[in-house]
Amino acid sequence: MCESNVFLKKQDGTETLIMENVAAITPLGTNTFLLKGLLGDRQEITGRIEDINLMAHKIVLVAV
Amino acid sequence: MCESNVFLKKQDGTETLIMENVAAITPLGTNTFLLKGLLGDRQEITGRIEDINLMAHKIVLVAV
Repeated sequence: MCESNVFLKKQDGTETLIMENVAAITPLGTNTFLLKGLLGDRQEITGRIEDINLMAHKIVLVAV
Repeated sequence: MCESNVFLKKQDGTETLIMENVAAITPLGTNTFLLKGLLGDRQEITGRIEDINLMAHKIVLVAV
């Protein structure tokens, strides 16, 4: 399976896991994204995309 | 494998395949992204992310 884990990085560099098994990401506006989970769960997150690493199943957003 | 195909959507709605087997995507600036391929190939693309669908292995950017 190819879901990713989405992390939010704070200004101090620490990363917090926001949501696991994210299947899709859709921008809702500037610096706002809708995360859709494999099981239909949804969560909005505010941040700027820093990196999408599909092989590592890791997506990092930076707090803005 | 979890690479995705990256498409660029034009104003008329048509989608063009820009790069296959993309392993990572890193923003370089506003509306500019560096696509990194599984085999080390790299390509810059200008656009705004419209949708990231990890299950469909499809990432769509819109031309700006």
